[in-house]
Amino acid sequence: VTGDEGFSAEVIRQLDLLVAGTDHGDPGLAAAMRRELGERLAEGRPLRVYQGFDPTSPHVHLGHGVGLSKLALFQELGHDVTFLIGDFTARIGDPTGRSATRPALTTEEIAANAQTYADQAFRIMDRARTRIAWNSEWLADMRLADVVRLASSMTLAQVLVREDFRKRLDDGAPIHLHEFLYALLQGEDAAHLGTDVQVGGTDQLFNILAGREVMKARGLRPQVVLTCPLLVGTDGRQKMSKSHGNDIGIAIDPKDMYGKVMSLPDDAMADYWRLASGLPPGEVDEAVRATDSGAWHPRDAKMRLARRIVLRWHGADAAAAAEAAFVQQFQRREVPDDVAPLPVPAGAASLVDLLMATGIPKSRSEARRLVEGGGVSLDGTRLDDAAALPELPDGAVLKVGKRHFFRLAR
Amino acid sequence: VTGDEGFSAEVIRQLDLLVAGTDHGDPGLAAAMRRELGERLAEGRPLRVYQGFDPTSPHVHLGHGVGLSKLALFQELGHDVTFLIGDFTARIGDPTGRSATRPALTTEEIAANAQTYADQAFRIMDRARTRIAWNSEWLADMRLADVVRLASSMTLAQVLVREDFRKRLDDGAPIHLHEFLYALLQGEDAAHLGTDVQVGGTDQLFNILAGREVMKARGLRPQVVLTCPLLVGTDGRQKMSKSHGNDIGIAIDPKDMYGKVMSLPDDAMADYWRLASGLPPGEVDEAVRATDSGAWHPRDAKMRLARRIVLRWHGADAAAAAEAAFVQQFQRREVPDDVAPLPVPAGAASLVDLLMATGIPKSRSEARRLVEGGGVSLDGTRLDDAAALPELPDGAVLKVGKRHFFRLAR
Repeated sequence: VTGDEGFSAEVIRQLDLLVAGTDHGDPGLAAAMRRELGERLAEGRPLRVYQGFDPTSPHVHLGHGVGLSKLALFQELGHDVTFLIGDFTARIGDPTGRSATRPALTTEEIAANAQTYADQAFRIMDRARTRIAWNSEWLADMRLADVVRLASSMTLAQVLVREDFRKRLDDGAPIHLHEFLYALLQGEDAAHLGTDVQVGGTDQLFNILAGREVMKARGLRPQVVLTCPLLVGTDGRQKMSKSHGNDIGIAIDPKDMYGKVMSLPDDAMADYWRLASGLPPGEVDEAVRATDSGAWHPRDAKMRLARRIVLRWHGADAAAAAEAAFVQQFQRREVPDDVAPLPVPAGAASLVDLLMATGIPKSRSEARRLVEGGGVSLDGTRLDDAAALPELPDGAVLKVGKRHFFRLAR
Repeated sequence: VTGDEGFSAEVIRQLDLLVAGTDHGDPGLAAAMRRELGERLAEGRPLRVYQGFDPTSPHVHLGHGVGLSKLALFQELGHDVTFLIGDFTARIGDPTGRSATRPALTTEEIAANAQTYADQAFRIMDRARTRIAWNSEWLADMRLADVVRLASSMTLAQVLVREDFRKRLDDGAPIHLHEFLYALLQGEDAAHLGTDVQVGGTDQLFNILAGREVMKARGLRPQVVLTCPLLVGTDGRQKMSKSHGNDIGIAIDPKDMYGKVMSLPDDAMADYWRLASGLPPGEVDEAVRATDSGAWHPRDAKMRLARRIVLRWHGADAAAAAEAAFVQQFQRREVPDDVAPLPVPAGAASLVDLLMATGIPKSRSEARRLVEGGGVSLDGTRLDDAAALPELPDGAVLKVGKRHFFRLAR
């Protein structure tokens, strides 16, 4: 990569892993950030990395997982990670009272949310090597004179670079002045922590860059910015968010997580491989290629993705169980609505006896061949022994061949 | 006046005095402020009135005097006046370091400036009935959470109504975000003081209106705004300011004050009558009429104005002395540069003897008539006694008739 001149192979290896999947909106900025990150990695010390988290909700979903994965990667590479709880603003909420999604929370609510949040994050991060910080620690005692100095480090024009501010100003929608302060406070966090790198979503790019300005105004070396794209939700269109109802929570039942990934539109898969699989860049590229080329059947590809994501957050056993459950449920879903009832013959002593009662096989040998060929299942579970009579729950669905279904009735 | 419906004669009398000479830029705002002020006056209690002063300089000039006069008037009408020293921002200065005129001052410098400032203000205000407040008292301890709430009470659009902000944004000139805070802090002052009325210059209109927004956001009754036009300086064009070198300081020598008023362009006189004379509206109108109609000779009109202004700040004796000194100096200024020397005749025993030596009067009786007609003066002082010989200082200028000057030489 041009710009990597003078870096060691190890620095380049780390760079490739760390910047994979990041998005800075602007190739110039991306190149500058890669260079700056490389320069710090070249110093051979553990970098101080942080991401801020909004503790207004305890809910962590795969969208949050994108940043958490990046933090976990930094940890794997030996760097120091701070998990910054933005409790200060959560305590204030939205002073204008306009936003129902920004209620003011009590210290106890915030602490409980943060604990739940961190517990979820530690499914992939290293608990022992994560520092947790609360920004109220330095923000709550900030005096007006400090705030004035902080505010003086940015201009209105710099703030209006932020797309949503500019758009709201142009549209005549109100921008309350404290919103500018909120951006600056992220800068105060960065300056206070003296970080090397801040990780965040692309929607935080402006705030993270504001941190660079604040650090420069303090005579500090400005932090490297690593922004990750926002993951789309299960609708494949909007960014993942609990309020959009398109989220995949990481603490939900593994079977539900698997099923939700399976419900993704096909064209969202590449993004999920890149942002949610936690695989290294090479394996991600391979999976995306196999999916796009059709080398993997779309349903198989999605099952691999789902299994990988469940494995990441819940472990291999849970992933295998979730897949088995999905397969079973999926096959049950194939059952047509109007299934013919099949009274179980009183004298049936084997599966073949049962099959003969359906009228589908022409002969007992055809019935045996059907079973041996895997063409018979009960409630989605394949039946292999033609000579034995399986357990026959009332209402269970017997599938014979590809298209014949019967609901058992005793 | 429409809008005065329901007010008593006393309320209307006070209103007429108090709103005289104010300017709100917008007739609708002016009418609303008059109505609101009337409603408070109708409550029959002493109103709480304040003006803020920037203690970065101890220098008070007639431009500051406009607001001080309004405060003095409130006091005369029985209201409570607070003289608010803006020491908080003076201590911070301009954190961007761009403005040489906004140095950060020490507490001692600020206190000394404020003391000097107040001493000058008390030439026209009632010291015993003036409360002095320092805004650092409530601003210095303000925490970030309070600042966030304060900032949430205004929107960017409201701030950009301020002409200079809008212009700077459009021109691409930097507006640092703390400048917004400074406007809001004036609102915090108003809310803290719980004032009925804030007085200020028209250049402060935005900040004072911001105070109304802050008060509304706190559930307080918003203060009445009374803004006074800015007095032009001695150049008759730019607003009076020490940095423009066009100011008339109120602590300068009364003779200099008189002379500076005399140096005003004729077309600035009406403004000075209105804003700097301290006269009630009826007398101001009369003076402006007499000046404009030519009923008063322009120089006489200006002398009346100068005398009135010196009287206001330095008292009647100083005003009379300043006028006499001006007249003398003015007449001396009429003396041409190349005055003919007049050796005093050795045997001269009377003014007539002296005048005959000039060669101007054709006869002793013409000389006597000249004296009796007021046509003879020495160093600007008229000589009345033709028969006596006045004291004749070496170098004094003798004026004979309208155009003849002689410098006495012994």
